[in-house]
Amino acid sequence: MEIKARAPGKIILAGEHAVVHGSTAVAASFDLFTLCSLRFHSDSENDDTLNLSLKSVGLEFSWSVGRIRETLSHLGGPFLSTPTSCSTEAVRCIAALVEEQNFPEAKIGLATGVSAFLWLYTSIQGFKPATVVVTSDLPVGAGLGSSAAFCVSLTATLLAYSDSVSLDKNQQGWLAYGDSDLDLLNKWAFEGEKIIHGKPSGLDNTVSTYGNIIKFRSGNLTHIKSNMPLKMLVTNTNVGRNTKALVASVSERTLRHPDAMSSVFNAVDFISKELSSLIESPTPDDLSMTEKEERLQELMEMNQGLLQCMGVSHASIETVLRTTLKYKLPSKLTGAGGGGCVLTLLPALLSGTIVDKVTTELESCGFQCLVAGIGGKGVEICFGESS
Amino acid sequence: MEIKARAPGKIILAGEHAVVHGSTAVAASFDLFTLCSLRFHSDSENDDTLNLSLKSVGLEFSWSVGRIRETLSHLGGPFLSTPTSCSTEAVRCIAALVEEQNFPEAKIGLATGVSAFLWLYTSIQGFKPATVVVTSDLPVGAGLGSSAAFCVSLTATLLAYSDSVSLDKNQQGWLAYGDSDLDLLNKWAFEGEKIIHGKPSGLDNTVSTYGNIIKFRSGNLTHIKSNMPLKMLVTNTNVGRNTKALVASVSERTLRHPDAMSSVFNAVDFISKELSSLIESPTPDDLSMTEKEERLQELMEMNQGLLQCMGVSHASIETVLRTTLKYKLPSKLTGAGGGGCVLTLLPALLSGTIVDKVTTELESCGFQCLVAGIGGKGVEICFGESS
Repeated sequence: MEIKARAPGKIILAGEHAVVHGSTAVAASFDLFTLCSLRFHSDSENDDTLNLSLKSVGLEFSWSVGRIRETLSHLGGPFLSTPTSCSTEAVRCIAALVEEQNFPEAKIGLATGVSAFLWLYTSIQGFKPATVVVTSDLPVGAGLGSSAAFCVSLTATLLAYSDSVSLDKNQQGWLAYGDSDLDLLNKWAFEGEKIIHGKPSGLDNTVSTYGNIIKFRSGNLTHIKSNMPLKMLVTNTNVGRNTKALVASVSERTLRHPDAMSSVFNAVDFISKELSSLIESPTPDDLSMTEKEERLQELMEMNQGLLQCMGVSHASIETVLRTTLKYKLPSKLTGAGGGGCVLTLLPALLSGTIVDKVTTELESCGFQCLVAGIGGKGVEICFGESS
Repeated sequence: MEIKARAPGKIILAGEHAVVHGSTAVAASFDLFTLCSLRFHSDSENDDTLNLSLKSVGLEFSWSVGRIRETLSHLGGPFLSTPTSCSTEAVRCIAALVEEQNFPEAKIGLATGVSAFLWLYTSIQGFKPATVVVTSDLPVGAGLGSSAAFCVSLTATLLAYSDSVSLDKNQQGWLAYGDSDLDLLNKWAFEGEKIIHGKPSGLDNTVSTYGNIIKFRSGNLTHIKSNMPLKMLVTNTNVGRNTKALVASVSERTLRHPDAMSSVFNAVDFISKELSSLIESPTPDDLSMTEKEERLQELMEMNQGLLQCMGVSHASIETVLRTTLKYKLPSKLTGAGGGGCVLTLLPALLSGTIVDKVTTELESCGFQCLVAGIGGKGVEICFGESS
């Protein structure tokens, strides 16, 4: 029997960088998914291995369950209903298991993801032979929450067959977890994220778990129900960036110009709050859908100006902005900046021809274009055949 | 005997648009000049005309003094030491004199400048035959204060031969007015600006009159002595813009997003204050000249981001920004935006080769490049031969 889970990516709609300095930020799920399938080996198969296939990055791993047990059983798991951090000792033991697999040097940045897999698998399911296959529509390392979607979809499959969650295994098609089960799932996914990122904010896994829109400030997350179907063009500039260095450069600018930057962060805070209220408010209220979209575009354009004021834009981002603006579509960077991804709202009444034209033009610059709805569902699972 | 005056242009270093909403702005004189020469006709010449030649825009005018007296003498001038506004009646009479000259339709925008000339000339000197020749390095209508430099240089020549000012007419070379004489001159120039612009702020004529740096907020002007020799590249995009419409669009955005925009204007206020303190502070103090230049560049880049947040940038401006940034030179728009001019600080130690390269590249885009010092002297006059 096979179980599948799919978990969405995330984008930051407003407030990146400023959130580090106390402003509100707004994130949304992005309806491109990471799909994880899990199949436990039956006794009759006589296959005593744990296999991990990461299709979209072309990596395959296989361990004998005996070897894993030998290396990790002294750590005390499984912990199932008590999400537990991977200790330094556990990190060391797991790293040894990953190294044994002759990890290709060029993809060494993905090794922590494999460590997260081993920790989540053994902590939740112990030492059972199985095959896990992961595919994803989300580019890796582009700030779209691919690692969180990986941890969330993986955890969703691992928890599905445990007694800690209640699911109707006979239901057909995609199925949502209950709220309290989602809390457990989210905590486990966060433990995976910690292995991958060190000190993640917890935002990415929360968005991927619960979906929809999340407002966050000083570590507090507020779930928001979107009342606007919103479609976004996400353009990946493919320019790699150093998030830590960018965050540090904003902090240094803030030290040099504390008063001005504090006002800039205040402006971002107001923009985030206005943007989340707009998305939350029923449509139509005072404003028609088109008017709300125009407001959103204006807020995104304003936020982009403030990000430029913080010094985190990049020539590649400016190229995207200029290109979409030719079609009267304002854009903003999303995430760390300095490259990475750019967000363009696609109004509901925008013709497909325009979308095709702008996409073609962006792709001719060497960028990757992704179009998807935002603010959709979080993680879902499917027993047996998925739809 | 001939008298000449030269008056500098102006640039806005920080705070445009935000100043309309109560923020501080900083302007500086820009060492490109409008040169005005005045020669009264001697009795022996038997030439009873008043001639105006506007060399840089290719316009020539000639009135008989009798015709001017007949049309304007009932207005009660000259007023010399009492700067007087041009009444509606006077505007009407002067417009008739301008119309008689078959003003070319294509240059009709300059007609108010000729009206200002007639008002200033007759109000200060009455009805004397003379020839006035004006040349200028400043592009017209580019936000560099060309009309103010015109009014200031003209007024300087007109006042020089009056009893209202005290000047050593035997001194050789360029000569400055005394402070109280400058006040009179500035008031008259402002009357000319009112004829040209309707409701000018008085900033442009004040910068052209006194030179140096001026901080202004809510109509209050503060003179600042620069302690940094600063050279700027001013790039004229040659894209015409509608200042009134741009100011209105910022106000409309402010009505839609009052809290966010108010923080943006606060940020600009802090930037203007920091920038003027930096220019005023002795060099070297805590910071070396190079460090101060880097700070200035950063403040200009921040201000540009905030102007983008206000929505007053333009594709042509972005092209200039991108081009100068290739040479690691940040830029900002100056003035109304939506086209117009862009300002780039040229650090003292920047090689001439780089300046040539960036200038060549900008000119190949169809832009006009002007390089000059800022914060230099205001209006000066020269009796006889000028140096």
